[in-house]
Amino acid sequence: MALSDSRVLAEATGAGALERLVAATHADMERVNTLILKRADSHVAMVPELARYLIEAGGKRLRPMLTIAAAQLFANRRGAEINYAAAVEFMHNATLLHDDVVDDSDMRRGRPAARMIWGNPASVLVGDFLLGQAFMMMVEAGDLDALGTLARAAAIIAEGEVFQLAKARDLEATAAEYEQVIRAKTATLFAAAAEVGALAGGADTDGRKALRDYGMELGLAFQLVDDVLDYRGEGDAMGKNTGDDLREGKMTLPVILALEEANPGEREIIAAVLGKPDASDTALAQVVAILNRHRTLDRTIDEAQGHVGRARTALDALPVSEMRTLLSDIAEFYVSRAY
Amino acid sequence: MALSDSRVLAEATGAGALERLVAATHADMERVNTLILKRADSHVAMVPELARYLIEAGGKRLRPMLTIAAAQLFANRRGAEINYAAAVEFMHNATLLHDDVVDDSDMRRGRPAARMIWGNPASVLVGDFLLGQAFMMMVEAGDLDALGTLARAAAIIAEGEVFQLAKARDLEATAAEYEQVIRAKTATLFAAAAEVGALAGGADTDGRKALRDYGMELGLAFQLVDDVLDYRGEGDAMGKNTGDDLREGKMTLPVILALEEANPGEREIIAAVLGKPDASDTALAQVVAILNRHRTLDRTIDEAQGHVGRARTALDALPVSEMRTLLSDIAEFYVSRAY
Repeated sequence: MALSDSRVLAEATGAGALERLVAATHADMERVNTLILKRADSHVAMVPELARYLIEAGGKRLRPMLTIAAAQLFANRRGAEINYAAAVEFMHNATLLHDDVVDDSDMRRGRPAARMIWGNPASVLVGDFLLGQAFMMMVEAGDLDALGTLARAAAIIAEGEVFQLAKARDLEATAAEYEQVIRAKTATLFAAAAEVGALAGGADTDGRKALRDYGMELGLAFQLVDDVLDYRGEGDAMGKNTGDDLREGKMTLPVILALEEANPGEREIIAAVLGKPDASDTALAQVVAILNRHRTLDRTIDEAQGHVGRARTALDALPVSEMRTLLSDIAEFYVSRAY
Repeated sequence: MALSDSRVLAEATGAGALERLVAATHADMERVNTLILKRADSHVAMVPELARYLIEAGGKRLRPMLTIAAAQLFANRRGAEINYAAAVEFMHNATLLHDDVVDDSDMRRGRPAARMIWGNPASVLVGDFLLGQAFMMMVEAGDLDALGTLARAAAIIAEGEVFQLAKARDLEATAAEYEQVIRAKTATLFAAAAEVGALAGGADTDGRKALRDYGMELGLAFQLVDDVLDYRGEGDAMGKNTGDDLREGKMTLPVILALEEANPGEREIIAAVLGKPDASDTALAQVVAILNRHRTLDRTIDEAQGHVGRARTALDALPVSEMRTLLSDIAEFYVSRAY
């Protein structure tokens, strides 16, 4: 399918999908949000101050919505999805706090990162607190199966972040290594969020697998799009600055694909910005010109589109329902952001 | 009881207690150590490199030994104590990695801290990995009760570290706030380690409570002694440098008690070192002289001795056994380190 056709399809199918997902999960998400605020509380004032600053900064809560939507997809809901959804959001926010320390990031969700206000030490420790609270909420829900899914995800996410760190500024990083990184650091939490939602909904083995696979493919597509937006957006979806990835030395697919084909001059221009926090906007613009010359942003979107297709296919194992269609559409929506 | 009497008693009772504990738990600890090495492994090379550097640096593994000893105290062992002990040690090591980042520490266990070799980012992330692995091992053991105990501990530890951070360099910090900090950041893991050991041993409600109380009091005594050794030792028990706490701005009991009684001149001398990483050894020696003038190191040991007494009393609820005596003696041993 030509890119322009993909684009038309993605925009048509994705249109309004987020609004529909928000509406379908709204009542449950109110309960999730109440629980999140309650469990971010502490007698140590700095904990809720910092946690709420981040949590209330207007993230879209896509991961907990995914948990709620997955639970709604199945017939035997037990109510555990509220705890699971809050736990997933806490895990995500713990990761963001630690990531911003790891990456020396100044901005997050369009505002100064928490570490710019409360410092690195508090960001590390409040992240740890949120992780502990996430596990407590999981324990209270009482399902060892779901707990194991999220505990494994926590370890894999950290492992993926270390791998990304090890590959930073590595001009020889490969597309396969990149996929390994984003599968671990991003897609694993999407997969776990959907899987524990399915468990809370009373899914059987096939249903559980369908949602895990859907979440994994959605997460891969999500990260690929995010990595395109880092070069293309006016500040990316996470409210960071354009070009941050390259300046932080992150080897994302658009750069890896470009380096595969780059001539020595192009290679030099990329290397001059890679891992240089102070690289100028002019230098960055030269890199973007190289990415466009080799069409690597578009090719990264194609890759994302492939994962969207596989996410939709994973849902085919389930009976037709309004929610199934919605989850299918939401996958398209997240790629449509990239155009 | 006069200090000299306490000292004679502690030294007599504590003598050889650590060696006896090591011997009594040796066979199980071999299995724990094997599990620790296995679960610190990863396809991402930096993960086991960093984790093993820290884990193999020769910590005494007091916390996992406590878990094993607690399990041995009861009649219905299920084998879960191996997983619990490894999980407790992983949680402890995750905390150490994050603490060294938070405190900008150069040394740990007598060697350069991991962050000096692999950097802060890797230390944060490998800490997260160890925490995830700890929860996986707990899940595999299959007891939600034990899981809840450790999950709660993880959140409380982080909360206590944030509280300590909030109180850093605060000349008005009180003894009550200090106890709140060490109860959360140190004693809670000792309590949890002993409690999950008791659960693995098949303890009833009273036995579980006895071990939790014992662990909490032991942990309080342990931290009080550690905070004395920071001023008195040739490098403290954790292989950090003498006076690090004060230079890092940590308000520990010896300083808090001294500030309560200090005249303006003494107060000024303490304030000149507090939170000043570059304070000279001469300036530090002046502070130690003030602590000695007000006997606050000895008074802190008295406080630790009080917790040792309560730790021993907690064990009175249990039938007499060789292991009960050993756990009682080990509490004395940890205070005898301070003399």
